[in-house]
Amino acid sequence: MHEERYQQRQQHLKQQVEERVAAATKSGGIIMVFTGNGKGKSTAAFGTATRAVGHDMRVGALQFIKGDWECGERNLLERNGVEFHIMATGFTWDTQDKAADTQAARLVWEQGVRMLSDPGYHLVVLDELTYMLTYGYLSLDEVLAALKNRPAHQSVVITGRACHREIIALADTVSELRPVKHAFDHGIKAQKGIDW
Amino acid sequence: MHEERYQQRQQHLKQQVEERVAAATKSGGIIMVFTGNGKGKSTAAFGTATRAVGHDMRVGALQFIKGDWECGERNLLERNGVEFHIMATGFTWDTQDKAADTQAARLVWEQGVRMLSDPGYHLVVLDELTYMLTYGYLSLDEVLAALKNRPAHQSVVITGRACHREIIALADTVSELRPVKHAFDHGIKAQKGIDW
Repeated sequence: MHEERYQQRQQHLKQQVEERVAAATKSGGIIMVFTGNGKGKSTAAFGTATRAVGHDMRVGALQFIKGDWECGERNLLERNGVEFHIMATGFTWDTQDKAADTQAARLVWEQGVRMLSDPGYHLVVLDELTYMLTYGYLSLDEVLAALKNRPAHQSVVITGRACHREIIALADTVSELRPVKHAFDHGIKAQKGIDW
Repeated sequence: MHEERYQQRQQHLKQQVEERVAAATKSGGIIMVFTGNGKGKSTAAFGTATRAVGHDMRVGALQFIKGDWECGERNLLERNGVEFHIMATGFTWDTQDKAADTQAARLVWEQGVRMLSDPGYHLVVLDELTYMLTYGYLSLDEVLAALKNRPAHQSVVITGRACHREIIALADTVSELRPVKHAFDHGIKAQKGIDW
């Protein structure tokens, strides 16, 4: 590309970016949702936690679905002050007992309710929350109420497939992760340091 | 849902999952790509780094595009041993000098070439690499060669919009982040602990 055209294009980009930045004046806690069937939803949620912890912000995290096996992101983030509460039943398809699953979900969610009403938390991660609503372990109304009534500066990250449309409507930032391809579908097993 | 139907559904899920897990027998380093216009690409890349560091794996990270301003994920990950190399020119639309931008990209990429040939690194993060190819700062052939010739157990995460189709073809796991909505588009500015 000729230098002149390069400069024109970059100048145009610069103006666009500057206009958009100038228009964005509000701040405060936001709700982020990572949904869809692609790889990277929880990874992005804990990447956000990493970012917040790197600024010495207090972070709480609930992990629904996932069991209590070792997990790299939890190892590092717990060592750095993030408070985790885990639905330690493991994958629900391993338990097959709705009453027990519901109770396990509710126990974890109680910690979420506490965090979502405590201004001391800057970020609350609700990992795999969407399934709790899909399976009916938690009620949509109580989740929406807790999200709406949280402290104004507190941000929340929600992950999981098939996020309920009312949570999408309430959220500020929503990314749908579309699986273009996944190593698992080509016979590569889940691996330490990549998948957990 | 009746308990019996619940158990049937969960049993079916359990079988499906177990069959897929049994079919996935390969392991080794993989290439992951987070692309698309949605929020969360770099966040997922550094979430992967957090996961690997939590298992005491050695991680190297290149940050193209991004400047050298403070960044939460870098703060925490650097404190925990991740090696960062940053293209400290900032956004290219701020510099408007192609020769200087190309040179800055090449300096960072040289560190990548070194990491991608060093079996000591379990994970190499190439954050915002796609733009370096789009803008012609790096050649596709040299990037593909470095990726293909890396140590067999080494994984790589690549982020950025509009990832080149040949990198997609080479990758094992690719998620496209589709922006359902973004706080920035509704006047909420980029915020510490969320966006950087």
